[in-house]
Amino acid sequence: MQLAPADSPVHNMRIMNVVYRNIDRADSAVIDALGVFGVATVHEAQGRTGLLGPMLRAIYTGARIAGSAVTVSLPPADNWMIHVAVEQCRAGDILVVAPTSASDAGYFGDLLACSLKARGVRGLVIDAGVRDVRDLTAMGFPVWAKAVHAQGTVKETLGSVNVPVVCGSGHVNPGDVIIADDDGVCVVARRDAAQVLKDAEAREAKETKVRERLRAGELGLDIYAMREKLAQRGLRYLDQPGED
Amino acid sequence: MQLAPADSPVHNMRIMNVVYRNIDRADSAVIDALGVFGVATVHEAQGRTGLLGPMLRAIYTGARIAGSAVTVSLPPADNWMIHVAVEQCRAGDILVVAPTSASDAGYFGDLLACSLKARGVRGLVIDAGVRDVRDLTAMGFPVWAKAVHAQGTVKETLGSVNVPVVCGSGHVNPGDVIIADDDGVCVVARRDAAQVLKDAEAREAKETKVRERLRAGELGLDIYAMREKLAQRGLRYLDQPGED
Amino acid sequence: MQLAPADSPVHNMRIMNVVYRNIDRADSAVIDALGVFGVATVHEAQGRTGLLGPMLRAIYTGARIAGSAVTVSLPPADNWMIHVAVEQCRAGDILVVAPTSASDAGYFGDLLACSLKARGVRGLVIDAGVRDVRDLTAMGFPVWAKAVHAQGTVKETLGSVNVPVVCGSGHVNPGDVIIADDDGVCVVARRDAAQVLKDAEAREAKETKVRERLRAGELGLDIYAMREKLAQRGLRYLDQPGED
Amino acid sequence: MQLAPADSPVHNMRIMNVVYRNIDRADSAVIDALGVFGVATVHEAQGRTGLLGPMLRAIYTGARIAGSAVTVSLPPADNWMIHVAVEQCRAGDILVVAPTSASDAGYFGDLLACSLKARGVRGLVIDAGVRDVRDLTAMGFPVWAKAVHAQGTVKETLGSVNVPVVCGSGHVNPGDVIIADDDGVCVVARRDAAQVLKDAEAREAKETKVRERLRAGELGLDIYAMREKLAQRGLRYLDQPGED
Amino acid sequence: MQLAPADSPVHNMRIMNVVYRNIDRADSAVIDALGVFGVATVHEAQGRTGLLGPMLRAIYTGARIAGSAVTVSLPPADNWMIHVAVEQCRAGDILVVAPTSASDAGYFGDLLACSLKARGVRGLVIDAGVRDVRDLTAMGFPVWAKAVHAQGTVKETLGSVNVPVVCGSGHVNPGDVIIADDDGVCVVARRDAAQVLKDAEAREAKETKVRERLRAGELGLDIYAMREKLAQRGLRYLDQPGED
Amino acid sequence: MQLAPADSPVHNMRIMNVVYRNIDRADSAVIDALGVFGVATVHEAQGRTGLLGPMLRAIYTGARIAGSAVTVSLPPADNWMIHVAVEQCRAGDILVVAPTSASDAGYFGDLLACSLKARGVRGLVIDAGVRDVRDLTAMGFPVWAKAVHAQGTVKETLGSVNVPVVCGSGHVNPGDVIIADDDGVCVVARRDAAQVLKDAEAREAKETKVRERLRAGELGLDIYAMREKLAQRGLRYLDQPGED
Repeated sequence: MQLAPADSPVHNMRIMNVVYRNIDRADSAVIDALGVFGVATVHEAQGRTGLLGPMLRAIYTGARIAGSAVTVSLPPADNWMIHVAVEQCRAGDILVVAPTSASDAGYFGDLLACSLKARGVRGLVIDAGVRDVRDLTAMGFPVWAKAVHAQGTVKETLGSVNVPVVCGSGHVNPGDVIIADDDGVCVVARRDAAQVLKDAEAREAKETKVRERLRAGELGLDIYAMREKLAQRGLRYLDQPGED
Repeated sequence: MQLAPADSPVHNMRIMNVVYRNIDRADSAVIDALGVFGVATVHEAQGRTGLLGPMLRAIYTGARIAGSAVTVSLPPADNWMIHVAVEQCRAGDILVVAPTSASDAGYFGDLLACSLKARGVRGLVIDAGVRDVRDLTAMGFPVWAKAVHAQGTVKETLGSVNVPVVCGSGHVNPGDVIIADDDGVCVVARRDAAQVLKDAEAREAKETKVRERLRAGELGLDIYAMREKLAQRGLRYLDQPGED
Repeated sequence: MQLAPADSPVHNMRIMNVVYRNIDRADSAVIDALGVFGVATVHEAQGRTGLLGPMLRAIYTGARIAGSAVTVSLPPADNWMIHVAVEQCRAGDILVVAPTSASDAGYFGDLLACSLKARGVRGLVIDAGVRDVRDLTAMGFPVWAKAVHAQGTVKETLGSVNVPVVCGSGHVNPGDVIIADDDGVCVVARRDAAQVLKDAEAREAKETKVRERLRAGELGLDIYAMREKLAQRGLRYLDQPGED
Repeated sequence: MQLAPADSPVHNMRIMNVVYRNIDRADSAVIDALGVFGVATVHEAQGRTGLLGPMLRAIYTGARIAGSAVTVSLPPADNWMIHVAVEQCRAGDILVVAPTSASDAGYFGDLLACSLKARGVRGLVIDAGVRDVRDLTAMGFPVWAKAVHAQGTVKETLGSVNVPVVCGSGHVNPGDVIIADDDGVCVVARRDAAQVLKDAEAREAKETKVRERLRAGELGLDIYAMREKLAQRGLRYLDQPGED
Repeated sequence: MQLAPADSPVHNMRIMNVVYRNIDRADSAVIDALGVFGVATVHEAQGRTGLLGPMLRAIYTGARIAGSAVTVSLPPADNWMIHVAVEQCRAGDILVVAPTSASDAGYFGDLLACSLKARGVRGLVIDAGVRDVRDLTAMGFPVWAKAVHAQGTVKETLGSVNVPVVCGSGHVNPGDVIIADDDGVCVVARRDAAQVLKDAEAREAKETKVRERLRAGELGLDIYAMREKLAQRGLRYLDQPGED
Repeated sequence: MQLAPADSPVHNMRIMNVVYRNIDRADSAVIDALGVFGVATVHEAQGRTGLLGPMLRAIYTGARIAGSAVTVSLPPADNWMIHVAVEQCRAGDILVVAPTSASDAGYFGDLLACSLKARGVRGLVIDAGVRDVRDLTAMGFPVWAKAVHAQGTVKETLGSVNVPVVCGSGHVNPGDVIIADDDGVCVVARRDAAQVLKDAEAREAKETKVRERLRAGELGLDIYAMREKLAQRGLRYLDQPGED
């Protein structure tokens, strides 16, 4: 995965077990507008970058959200730092949780969802397991996770909040815009958000016209003028020889 | 997986980057009748053959389709040949797409679905990823895929249409009958279709009677007369020793 | 996975190809009450033990059952012993099926479900594949399985019924209480069931109060008095340095 | 996986965070003799039972060991209990380590291997990750593990020593005989060890004769007298029709 | 995976439980010459087709073989048909074994290897498990398999010999040329073998020259004249901005 | 995975299809010294961070290298940018290659290795497949890869060189120090390299003393003074009740 160049300040030492309190977020109107377009369109609009891996699946279908990433780096099977992160969340945020080594334990359930919902948080993206999916579904708190697994976690070891993380094989900086729907999860760098929104609008406008022509029976081969290039590359059309 | 002997003509050279235009298809009444029985029954009726692997999952539940395979062999993360294949599809067909090496990229989305739907194509089976599943679900275009992943693809490298492919660890010839439902995907060789239909009808008739006896409380052990064979093989019945 | 010490009698020889007929079951009122709490709560109430692995997924959402385990150890891709096991099932039981080596074949479908339902069996947990999921869903017979796969099985080789098995990387004794819902499957040793129920009730009572405080906007950091311990462990709060 | 009936005493409550000190072990001459036969022969000799799953791989080829299981149940990514378990090990033992939920962290490296080697422990079986494989190979301390991964672990949460565990999808009681070689890991119940040894000797004697006949060019079809049974089941021999 | 058009005769019915005795094989000098080039070169020489999937791994390093495929389609965890297939093998053949549904059981060990070796068979390709790898390595009988697993199999259910199979997600016809080395397994259609050999020789000659230029420090960018095309596509060279 | 704060300059726009020419590298003496310690020690010395995932495996055992990362972001199954990247490599570098979506194709073989070797490059880390492993082993060019797969790639689509990438679920900046051995791959931020080296030296000195005490038979329980803390957390020692 290629990364957009880092949007965060330059440090010259490793910093661990720290909570960054005052992250910058993108403009909320831009965030909400990106959410309307959804994952596939935004991903294309920013040059086919920013997608997290397909192992992150929605626990129920139909949700489409966008928000600002509050990130959590924590140990495997230890959810202590999620409690710490809740306090850093504002209305409109999405919590992004990544263990430091692979875990499918159930870090998150209905109690934490109640707490996040009370703060206006829009959803959770976690490179691990969640539980209470029946309750999460009933309360309409969407989650994209690697596993559904009830396995309980401990609260023993620290991690960090609002540091860059790798989640679902993708890179997320705190304050990045997260878009998530049934297709998965896409990340837009905070400073790129306005430009990506414009590109998404342009793409959608173009696609709307193509969609109508396709529905009317025109072929993509003709709409996109592909036939000549295909022939140049050597594509041949043959009749299947008769059999009988 | 054992394959039904090849239903396609004999060639004596490798042929690549070619589109076969006039494939033979099975009788449409037979195809539709096979679709009523569904995957499990058809698979059993043809001697437990023809099933594609369980990694191919329906993107939404409840669909059950049957149709003639238009096959596509294409490169990883390059969907150019799907555009080529659309033109070869007729009403009643099912598109079967197989990359030449493993890919979970999102080859297919709502625009291509609009195009296929306009031609009367019944669905897609793809050994890779798809996207826009929310739109595909809304328009009722069923897809069996290995992944849901928005990752965009390129249009740079040729492949072939209507050649034999391996899809989901199974073998599909162009013109084969594809049956797909919540249980997965099953392939019936074109020339076998009528016979398999008869076998499916016979099986279903027999199962209907068994089903009623089971519902009434009879045991499979008795209906299938298994007790003697089990005893001959050495099955013993014991009482669990008391504990307390 | 740590196991609760074995609840079954001590033997001094390997016993194979045997059906134990008279297993002990837990009190049915206790079983039903455990089912109300569901997997996550029961798992926590018994000290975070007893969970089967997340590869066992419900074939449809919304079911929550509890019952007594009738266990089946059988060969890969051979479902003969399921027919044998049906006879050992009573109303309120849950069938737990484990192949002796990995298999994703479709051991179980609508006919066996009809038979089990006629006997009052509440569901199936199987470390392998099932089929006819459309019919199983329509008849409301819940299944937790590793795969949906129509691949037919044979009836050639014996196994055992009501012996200890490893299913979904967890250990199940015959007569154990099985709880299953959208979060997965949890096992409670028969003799522990009453105590675990009490612990689950106590846990739920406590969680209900916490849930209300979280909904009202209190933080887990404060409710659980975590701040001091976090500081002792060395958690630091920093402001993100300005960028512009 | 079917389990041999439990070899351990009956308890009536869940016991956690406990170290059992005085486990019974099988006769050391029997253990050593089983080790000579290796995994495949012992597995067959006890009726094709006792094998752990193929995800447990030797970190270097050529080792073949047998010993008494000292078992450890511990949290994901926390290796504290291995330090506790070392003290319970004697010469001739094999440490068997199973996390309570899936982890690929590196629980074990050269320091722990030095400690175990000093006590005469013969090897490690772990359903998780190890590191320092270069050092472990150099010192000739064999390990069967799910992953090679350097990821460090913490020492925060208790577990238990010498309780029954599920490791590699198989069940291991403390004091069971472990056999491990390039084919994987096999478990023999302590009380069965002497009988399994006799069966292994008998099997090996028979196989030695068959091996010589096969080397001389005789066919298994004839040695095992399979032809009649194959014909009865319906196997047909055909000539491939000419093509040209 | 795209398939070379079928090299086998046309049939009009499904044929199961059959052994085809007299398959055609490619010229032995051609086969041996293909083996010298190895998997990667042959795969490229035939247009990047014919490769089986990377899940098929050599059980020991350093072997490189080529031979004629004798194919076996058999049930999961049942190795009866391998005994049947041995009789159909000649010197120079390679056995290719594919279960009808996924299995990691240990179908093959030292006894069968002795028998095949006595007949001059060069190796085994199996989409399942093998055992006795220590013995197989010692006797120099190379195997490409999906798993090393000692799990025993039964001899209860028929299959077929010398029918087309899907193995490792690739298609193999009886009599195809199999090339296998540390890179995996490649299949060449029998009738294409002579042409592919010529193409491999041409490719190797060209690569030898390129290799020398690369060793001398020339860049592929220049040898292959890529710079202009890269610039046309829009590649830009930038200096990393200074940091300090 | 938590990331060390970004070591690269701040940009305010997405930049694609670009080659950065003049990356900064760490001091070569520091790099070489880190290589002596190896992956596990360096990973621990920098606070258990920086490890790439265990899916990246060495193609042969025994190599241990350290060098400066030249990073490549490229499309799935398209290795064009590797040719571009070669020119940016100097003696002492390690090439780090990451596709933008998952691919197991064989991006890299003996020709590219010859070219890199001619420039003094020390090895390759690639989140995809490689081939010609027999040749790579013979020439002593070490590779850490996700798959060995001969599948050929195309040269059609651009990517970038010396941009941040996610490789093996870890984050790599151009110029980072890469350490790789049989335990996997570890990344040290360029600016941290000198400090991490000091910490590694301190850790190794301490471990050397512990190693000697363990070899002499002392227990980690005593060396690390764990007994009191274990008792405080509630660990109990029990005797296994007699059975006979």
